[in-house]
Amino acid sequence: MKTAKRILLTESEIPTRWYNIMADMPNKPLPPLHPGTREPIKPEDLTPLFPMGLIEQEASTEQYIDIPGEVLDLYRSYRPSPLFRAYGLEKAIGTKCKIYYKYEGYSYAGSHKANTAIAQAYYNKQEGVKKMTTETGAGQWGSALSFACQYFGIELEVFMVKISLEQKPYRKIMMNTYDATVFPSPSNLTDAGRKILAEYPDSPGSLGIAISEAVERAARDPQIKYSLGSVLNHVLLHQTIIGEEALLQMAKTEDYPDIIIGCFGGGSNFAGISFPFIRENLINGRKTRAIAIEPASCPKLTRGRYMYDFGDSVGLTPLLAMYTLGHNFVPAKIHAGGLRYHGAGVLVSQLLKDGLIEAQSKYQKDCFKNGVIFARSEGILPAPESTYAITGAVDEARKCDEEGKAQTILFNLSGHGHLDLAAFDKYFSDEMEDHELTNREIEESIAMIQ
Amino acid sequence: MKTAKRILLTESEIPTRWYNIMADMPNKPLPPLHPGTREPIKPEDLTPLFPMGLIEQEASTEQYIDIPGEVLDLYRSYRPSPLFRAYGLEKAIGTKCKIYYKYEGYSYAGSHKANTAIAQAYYNKQEGVKKMTTETGAGQWGSALSFACQYFGIELEVFMVKISLEQKPYRKIMMNTYDATVFPSPSNLTDAGRKILAEYPDSPGSLGIAISEAVERAARDPQIKYSLGSVLNHVLLHQTIIGEEALLQMAKTEDYPDIIIGCFGGGSNFAGISFPFIRENLINGRKTRAIAIEPASCPKLTRGRYMYDFGDSVGLTPLLAMYTLGHNFVPAKIHAGGLRYHGAGVLVSQLLKDGLIEAQSKYQKDCFKNGVIFARSEGILPAPESTYAITGAVDEARKCDEEGKAQTILFNLSGHGHLDLAAFDKYFSDEMEDHELTNREIEESIAMIQ
Repeated sequence: MKTAKRILLTESEIPTRWYNIMADMPNKPLPPLHPGTREPIKPEDLTPLFPMGLIEQEASTEQYIDIPGEVLDLYRSYRPSPLFRAYGLEKAIGTKCKIYYKYEGYSYAGSHKANTAIAQAYYNKQEGVKKMTTETGAGQWGSALSFACQYFGIELEVFMVKISLEQKPYRKIMMNTYDATVFPSPSNLTDAGRKILAEYPDSPGSLGIAISEAVERAARDPQIKYSLGSVLNHVLLHQTIIGEEALLQMAKTEDYPDIIIGCFGGGSNFAGISFPFIRENLINGRKTRAIAIEPASCPKLTRGRYMYDFGDSVGLTPLLAMYTLGHNFVPAKIHAGGLRYHGAGVLVSQLLKDGLIEAQSKYQKDCFKNGVIFARSEGILPAPESTYAITGAVDEARKCDEEGKAQTILFNLSGHGHLDLAAFDKYFSDEMEDHELTNREIEESIAMIQ
Repeated sequence: MKTAKRILLTESEIPTRWYNIMADMPNKPLPPLHPGTREPIKPEDLTPLFPMGLIEQEASTEQYIDIPGEVLDLYRSYRPSPLFRAYGLEKAIGTKCKIYYKYEGYSYAGSHKANTAIAQAYYNKQEGVKKMTTETGAGQWGSALSFACQYFGIELEVFMVKISLEQKPYRKIMMNTYDATVFPSPSNLTDAGRKILAEYPDSPGSLGIAISEAVERAARDPQIKYSLGSVLNHVLLHQTIIGEEALLQMAKTEDYPDIIIGCFGGGSNFAGISFPFIRENLINGRKTRAIAIEPASCPKLTRGRYMYDFGDSVGLTPLLAMYTLGHNFVPAKIHAGGLRYHGAGVLVSQLLKDGLIEAQSKYQKDCFKNGVIFARSEGILPAPESTYAITGAVDEARKCDEEGKAQTILFNLSGHGHLDLAAFDKYFSDEMEDHELTNREIEESIAMIQ
């Protein structure tokens, strides 16, 4: 019998626990260090930034963590999300592989970011927080958190990378519609922002700078908590509902993925789809390859160094043991703004170091080419970030075909691209460039932080 | 037991027939007339424009029409669509009514337009059509048909109202991504367009003009068929899958709608949600009120006249017996571009004439106000057109509360507004205006066609 195009779960099949891969990793990641003392950080060091519920999750070694009822209630407005068999894409590229994708674009924000936004706003609300602050690059994260905060009665301010704000005014309007306040970053609201503006009045901003501004706001004001949309353990934890659902959905087919693919910025959507399957590798002897796909112009996994580095530009965050290009690295202005980040989450970094996952980099023109093939064959117009996952899947399928293997590939389609159509226009008008990064540029950026 | 937030159907519960209200109407609508002879039109008169499969549906009096398997296959990529209980909205407006909404924004195009786009492209493909032409205002219809044509291997050209194209470049890029060719209308590709451009070189275009251009293209070239996204019987027929699903979903609750609401442009999304429930009124003695909500600036149902009129500006289409403001009526440039059309489909017009449905008009600032309340309470950011349906529901709920009645209201949320955020920006910056239309303006517009 032919597998259905769309494989659904019923309301009652929604997973009620997040999966914490920390419990099953053969080597635990190195602890975060205090930026001042360089000693392993203690939970109380983080209380100015995060509520205790999230700090506990950050350090937890429990294998599963129950999803609170109020979080599940809001998840149920768009979850379980569908799993699709990519019959159209398979035909378009003429592969013998079976390709599946999990689609996260049905959330109110149009991407997977809602999964952790809801959880983070919830735990803040539980501890009486009335105001939060965050940063956003392309705007996916900021808009996801805006509604989540609105829903739980929390005021939100968002530092949005200035150039992104100018290029993507729609994302700002979306955040305003959800009642969030948006500041272009660098701003003169923080020391970090004022310092940058004094040196470079025309600074286009960067995610690292915006993080510095938001962290500074929260660190200085006991009424404000901070929230991050990727990288951290608790963020990756919340995203594992994607992979838990996908496991149940794959079980409704006759297939099981040989290869799992996600695009990679800080690690959250990749971890979300892959961690539950990596558990099956570690515990149940499965042998699925998990491949993170990053931009060639921001290649921390494939060309960065594993070391302690800051999460932000200014050096306010704890030091994290991760693959990094150096916290001053300024990635080329590719259109997948969500993938322009210098470092990788510590969980993913440790897994890569231990050979439990793989990484590949792709050029953006190839990604848009495959994104268009995907839109024309599957209908869904993908986010620029998601085109990296599509390209990972297409390239692996072609390699399998060359080697005469018909494998099963599952990738995470993290969001739709309805707010990113200007990037497709650049692609069609041949105004898009690929960026070659020399080894020297990378070495210099890393040397700056040693 | 509390009704779930999201009421789903399983894959196998998808309705497999469209409902044709023609079979059950107490008074059948008057026949369309040939624009030259003014005699009732014969099927063969329409063959230059449409494939026979659709012409037969246009005149059919069969109560149900089977949905072809290939159409169902593509429907299944986003259908059954979810029905939501609007707990958040109910709380935000403090009503005792129960409010439900059917959400059509999960389709690849982000709106209900996919339901007929897929069917129309399919019937054209069945008859060997290789190229189609259509018009689009706000771009919802054009993007829906673009992928449907691409899927069935048909080339598509779209005449897009020039001012909409300039205001909403994203919609054009979306159509290009699906491989359609988009022309700003008026264009110099047709006599209709050239005539307008000669008189008004700076004409911003209108839906009526764009229809004239697309109809002319198809009428003159036997290789090209024409497609319309609303108004016609077969279009409304295809949309009834919305209401058929909603009936099954309401049956899973303890409720049945006292009131059904849809926004109204040409009639397709309103008909889609309401016709199956009107059948239950006509046949099974139910007493649901069905209310079409139109813009105060384009009030054909509430202030237009029931008469024969053209569907386009130039007078190329058959004459239709409908409520109209006159085919030369130029509606104010409200942001709900999909509702800026001078006439109403003949089925809906006859039902209104016979008192089987109701109509109300709303001002756009009220609609955006309610749209923002909806986004902040339900999460989904609505299309400007859909804010009219939201407003209809909110106003009816308030009226019920005043009268001490707790009724059940169901409305159709026809699409998301991710491509229409500029309109929300205008609303927030207080740059949005309401347009008062005098009786004299309406009388003059109607007098022009008599």
